[in-house]
Amino acid sequence: MAQPSTISPATLLKDELDIVIPTIRNLDFLEMWRPFFQPYHLIIVQDGDPSKTIKVPQGFDYELYNRNDINRILGPKSSCISFKDSACRCFGYMVSKKKYIYTIDDDCFVAKDPSGKDINALEQHIKNLLSPSTPFFFNTLYDPYRDGADFVRGYPFSLREGVPTAVSHGLWLNIPDYDAPTQLVKPLERNSRYVDAIMTIPKGTLFPMCGMNLAFNRELIGPAMYFGLMGDGQPIGRYDDMWAGWCTKVICDHLGLGVKTGLPYIWHSKASNPFVNLKKEYKGIYWQEELIPFFQSVTLPKDCTTVQQCYIEISKQVKAKLSKVDDYFNKLADAMVTWIEAWDELNPSGAKSTPK
Amino acid sequence: MAQPSTISPATLLKDELDIVIPTIRNLDFLEMWRPFFQPYHLIIVQDGDPSKTIKVPQGFDYELYNRNDINRILGPKSSCISFKDSACRCFGYMVSKKKYIYTIDDDCFVAKDPSGKDINALEQHIKNLLSPSTPFFFNTLYDPYRDGADFVRGYPFSLREGVPTAVSHGLWLNIPDYDAPTQLVKPLERNSRYVDAIMTIPKGTLFPMCGMNLAFNRELIGPAMYFGLMGDGQPIGRYDDMWAGWCTKVICDHLGLGVKTGLPYIWHSKASNPFVNLKKEYKGIYWQEELIPFFQSVTLPKDCTTVQQCYIEISKQVKAKLSKVDDYFNKLADAMVTWIEAWDELNPSGAKSTPK
Repeated sequence: MAQPSTISPATLLKDELDIVIPTIRNLDFLEMWRPFFQPYHLIIVQDGDPSKTIKVPQGFDYELYNRNDINRILGPKSSCISFKDSACRCFGYMVSKKKYIYTIDDDCFVAKDPSGKDINALEQHIKNLLSPSTPFFFNTLYDPYRDGADFVRGYPFSLREGVPTAVSHGLWLNIPDYDAPTQLVKPLERNSRYVDAIMTIPKGTLFPMCGMNLAFNRELIGPAMYFGLMGDGQPIGRYDDMWAGWCTKVICDHLGLGVKTGLPYIWHSKASNPFVNLKKEYKGIYWQEELIPFFQSVTLPKDCTTVQQCYIEISKQVKAKLSKVDDYFNKLADAMVTWIEAWDELNPSGAKSTPK
Repeated sequence: MAQPSTISPATLLKDELDIVIPTIRNLDFLEMWRPFFQPYHLIIVQDGDPSKTIKVPQGFDYELYNRNDINRILGPKSSCISFKDSACRCFGYMVSKKKYIYTIDDDCFVAKDPSGKDINALEQHIKNLLSPSTPFFFNTLYDPYRDGADFVRGYPFSLREGVPTAVSHGLWLNIPDYDAPTQLVKPLERNSRYVDAIMTIPKGTLFPMCGMNLAFNRELIGPAMYFGLMGDGQPIGRYDDMWAGWCTKVICDHLGLGVKTGLPYIWHSKASNPFVNLKKEYKGIYWQEELIPFFQSVTLPKDCTTVQQCYIEISKQVKAKLSKVDDYFNKLADAMVTWIEAWDELNPSGAKSTPK
């Protein structure tokens, strides 16, 4: 392996990483994760009815926020946090005081690698985040920083130090992350292919970021991880993580930060209802045909040097160029600004995450 | 899988594909490939001393060209074909009359997949070439056209038809394709990681194309597969495939064609001598620091609509912008033009590969 990955991350970052879980139910799924998650602090964002009690298995260190808490903490700015949609998870990113975030859905279980061993997803994400990314040139043997791998012949030496990794996007065995039309057409398709790879998504290339199994460096990219306005009172759902992914990738490209995808896998246990999903998604399915070209052509001015500045700039371009698609994007652009204001309020300057 | 891959390529393309092998020795390595290669026609390009006899195992259908043949067929234009370097293989691409080319080195053997089964590399390349590529947006579950895979949520539906695939770049188990410095530093490193993936290299991203295990659609991209001036009388070696890869990728991006990398693996049996390699490579190692930014910034005018036009345009830009790096690039730019002239002579217009 190339030099930078001499890292031994066994319960590493214990005091520097929060696990954020959005949920509406008891967190029994944590039992299976106990050997891997118990040393870490959890931030649970309870969606839906705040009077309901969410049971958390004993022995976990956690804080829990329901809608009442969000409203109390953010006041009028709480309007930027979605309700009745897992997009509410981004509130957890905002209240965290840690450098790293791992977020996982409560229907995701521990997967096994081809040898039958339980996969410590969090450990792999940490390895991904602590080793550099290589967005400027493609390495055909995948992540050059892994054991037994390196840069291949023809890889420029000046690029071999890589850049800091901001995002680690993990994948899913069993139920793949399909949209409603694909779910409807292929109800029985399961993902059983374990691809033993991690790779950097090249600069200038967008990808569909899924929030199910995702880690990121909050100091480097946190304010871009806004999951938008979804769910209750909104015309759309299931595009929360996509929106965050497009914004994040554009900003990472601008700031010279890396985004990795591949390992680790989690076991995604159950497919959501494709009919319900279709209702949430259908506007997104045609809107995205305009959103993707928009994000492919976004350019950020050189004087945008912080994530916040970049994000505010994108919000302006959203308003200018996407409001013709639907008035929703006016609302969303405003919410993006509110999100940054709320972020800065909870993460006052002087903190590394807001280098003004 | 998404629709386009309902292909059953068992000895498919038998009459539409040539296997090109550059060599200086008897081709005993073909014995191991017999079950997979025997139905196909071979084009053997004999490098070095033309008086030497190369033995080809019985039962293979082949034509063989040595240096005398190349000189006779191309006349003065033979100057564009390298001598004493495996770059001479591109002569085989030129004399082929088939739609597809597979090229392999004679130190490459049949690899085994994780289940222990022999990998039919050629069959996998054909599958790759016959299914579309997706250069405009990244699919996190890799090739969406494979069995058990598809486009994930958030992938624009308008892009799901993909584009024609021009190149299939295969990988290597055992001896990885490292440059001399990496070989020297890690003499014992072997690639034992079988990554079960095929992916499209995104538009706008360059990659180090290795000629050891490579297939392409000659009609779509053939004239870009020039392996440059290497070896005898030249200041550089081991950049033949890299050069072809940079030119090819830029042209594929311009013409809306796809380049895939990943499966199939071959078993690369022996590491070449790192000291010899260093001598061949050292100029390339610093030149590439200027070549890569050059190719990253090449833009081709809209009226370049054939591979030949694109290639001539690149040759002009090479002359204009790289001759300051070294006078060698003047020579190379001229050879690029000669190559296209020779290609068109052997592939007269009317043939699909020269759509003027």
